[in-house]
Amino acid sequence: MAVITLLTDFGSRDMYVGVMKGVILGLEPGARLVDLTHDVEPGDIAGAAFKLAEAWRFFPSGSVHLAVVDPGVGSARRPLAARAGGHFFVGPDNGLFTAVFEEAGEYSARELASEAHRLSPVSRTFHGRDIFAPAAAWLARGTALEELGPPLRDPVRGEVPAVPRPAADGSIRAAVVHVDVFGNLVTSIRGEQLEQWFPGGEPVLEWDGGRARRQVAAYAEAPTGEPVMLVGSSGRLEISVNRDSAARVTGLGRGDGVRLRPAGRGDERRESGTEERRG
Amino acid sequence: MAVITLLTDFGSRDMYVGVMKGVILGLEPGARLVDLTHDVEPGDIAGAAFKLAEAWRFFPSGSVHLAVVDPGVGSARRPLAARAGGHFFVGPDNGLFTAVFEEAGEYSARELASEAHRLSPVSRTFHGRDIFAPAAAWLARGTALEELGPPLRDPVRGEVPAVPRPAADGSIRAAVVHVDVFGNLVTSIRGEQLEQWFPGGEPVLEWDGGRARRQVAAYAEAPTGEPVMLVGSSGRLEISVNRDSAARVTGLGRGDGVRLRPAGRGDERRESGTEERRG
Amino acid sequence: MAVITLLTDFGSRDMYVGVMKGVILGLEPGARLVDLTHDVEPGDIAGAAFKLAEAWRFFPSGSVHLAVVDPGVGSARRPLAARAGGHFFVGPDNGLFTAVFEEAGEYSARELASEAHRLSPVSRTFHGRDIFAPAAAWLARGTALEELGPPLRDPVRGEVPAVPRPAADGSIRAAVVHVDVFGNLVTSIRGEQLEQWFPGGEPVLEWDGGRARRQVAAYAEAPTGEPVMLVGSSGRLEISVNRDSAARVTGLGRGDGVRLRPAGRGDERRESGTEERRG
Repeated sequence: MAVITLLTDFGSRDMYVGVMKGVILGLEPGARLVDLTHDVEPGDIAGAAFKLAEAWRFFPSGSVHLAVVDPGVGSARRPLAARAGGHFFVGPDNGLFTAVFEEAGEYSARELASEAHRLSPVSRTFHGRDIFAPAAAWLARGTALEELGPPLRDPVRGEVPAVPRPAADGSIRAAVVHVDVFGNLVTSIRGEQLEQWFPGGEPVLEWDGGRARRQVAAYAEAPTGEPVMLVGSSGRLEISVNRDSAARVTGLGRGDGVRLRPAGRGDERRESGTEERRG
Repeated sequence: MAVITLLTDFGSRDMYVGVMKGVILGLEPGARLVDLTHDVEPGDIAGAAFKLAEAWRFFPSGSVHLAVVDPGVGSARRPLAARAGGHFFVGPDNGLFTAVFEEAGEYSARELASEAHRLSPVSRTFHGRDIFAPAAAWLARGTALEELGPPLRDPVRGEVPAVPRPAADGSIRAAVVHVDVFGNLVTSIRGEQLEQWFPGGEPVLEWDGGRARRQVAAYAEAPTGEPVMLVGSSGRLEISVNRDSAARVTGLGRGDGVRLRPAGRGDERRESGTEERRG
Repeated sequence: MAVITLLTDFGSRDMYVGVMKGVILGLEPGARLVDLTHDVEPGDIAGAAFKLAEAWRFFPSGSVHLAVVDPGVGSARRPLAARAGGHFFVGPDNGLFTAVFEEAGEYSARELASEAHRLSPVSRTFHGRDIFAPAAAWLARGTALEELGPPLRDPVRGEVPAVPRPAADGSIRAAVVHVDVFGNLVTSIRGEQLEQWFPGGEPVLEWDGGRARRQVAAYAEAPTGEPVMLVGSSGRLEISVNRDSAARVTGLGRGDGVRLRPAGRGDERRESGTEERRG
């Protein structure tokens, strides 16, 4: 009973996701279907790639992750299936899986060329239904990856969240890589990097118009209204506001830059965080 | 392990869909539940009927399709179950299944009158829970359709997307029948009709304020910004804009009329599609 | 094949719900996962509690209900699992389950302290993944509730919809406790209370700016545009408008007060409901 996860930009109003599930269940009635999300912004490959990279490792080994954010459907872009980290990945070769492959360290990819493992005829506008869903179902049934097509040796390299880098002024330059439903701002900085760069110290996280000086371990520890730093559940440094949206309070969004620097003069902790709210 | 699909206008904020699933799993623990969509506009029977008609045939034979868009719940409208095209359909007799029955060619319908196959008591406001979910579960368990009630010989005829028709001026009159999440405008014209009416020719698709002169096989083949024609994954002619929303660019929506006519003077292809954008 | 329902305020854009499902399926591959809703307003414990209380009893006995609306995650609030009414409940001890416990009459609760039944390490920001999902999976596998931790004898008491009370002027004071997707206004008054307080009589339901004088048994029986009373599928008195949103027509929302009083002079029934629409 293999698990197949689904991640698309098809939204929840149309029948496209249901159609993909119908195709899968026709080929592998025992598949366990789990939605990651279908509310990716249309064509937002980088956003989808981030969500997949954060989620896949929490599923059982052998799970198949079907990701269809595919603005180039029907063009020369190749359809792909891969094995990485003991899981399978199926979708367009447009960079969706770059972060997963980097994290897993090794991977083996194939181009989905086998006509026996597709619907027929294949449309040029809905490969999710005609190519990717069948491939995921065949993998879930135990078909060898190698049967699905020839090696694909040079997958397209997608955008990967920028690695934080030290700047000439001694600060670390990083960026917001995800804004979650609560408005928490997830940055490209990992918790272990924080410890490495500021051992025992208390860095300040700055952005244009504001800063967070306090680091807490749980949302509920933060004074109301004050943007604070916190290493979140994904292991990344987040900007959060207790019972409020840090995105709203700070005005920051995905892609915006942030800077980590050592605390100095003028960084005394205050009880009130109102200054940041105005920032 | 029969599949049961669910299609409602209950949205995702309430617990009503979950309650229906609970009732089903209580009667048939092995049912495989697949959501088609629950974001049909409240009471939009025609919109729901279109989505169901596009989706059902991609599921395995024997699947049960439970559709509850039911503004007349508790009135004299009859509850229905039917077999058509090797699948089962359960929901209110208000036209939801007309397109499916037409497409399948033959069907057999019953009125859901058997008290042994309902919850008791039956509310007059939530037949999805009390009548339809139990009927779907019994069918998934293998109960014969005929056990659920007496024949229902004259199901209510619902709105079916208008068949495109030739007009006196030689054009074909048709309409937009669906706008998908990407803003693609799906029309009532089928790809094979296009071939039949304009063999080898290059028709122009017009609407009030604009036209599409170019036909492509894949979204990615269209010049950016230009509305083009394309036979989409459902086999229908669509108006699409590469990496943009045709609905936004053209201002068209569901129900709006379009006209297919032979290309003529003034229809020279141009590289730029900006004229249409202003149309 | 135990059922696990999920109810959160995580929304549908992020991967958090999928991650919880991955953790569950890793521990109990046979679990049947059913979403109640993930569109609870962030941190709205009372709203989530109402939805859970309305839904749980429609699932098979032995089902596990996992509810994570947890603004106090990482603080001193305790993680909880309980058995009540033949079902299991897992989530933060913040009042989410108060209405369920009251309705079930008896319950047995434990604090989720067993390290063997958690992920390791436990984050301080995502107990849904690290503590609650594993506990739900272990219960679904048949692990005894008592193995998950010591007794939790004094669960936090949450907000429960106010019991309607008679006032000095002879009216019954109650409130709107839920607004559903169709705009129906569900009140704290139960159908059987209506019968008890106004045996054979015809009460009027009033609110600031309007009133409903007519009681119907089904939505479709109400004259168009007129707010009417109706005992809905949950057994509670609702204010509804046939084919329209009572919330929009009346301007009422969750928490707003309503009054039931005997009909009197000036309450003659009229065919037209326009007065209420202006109210």
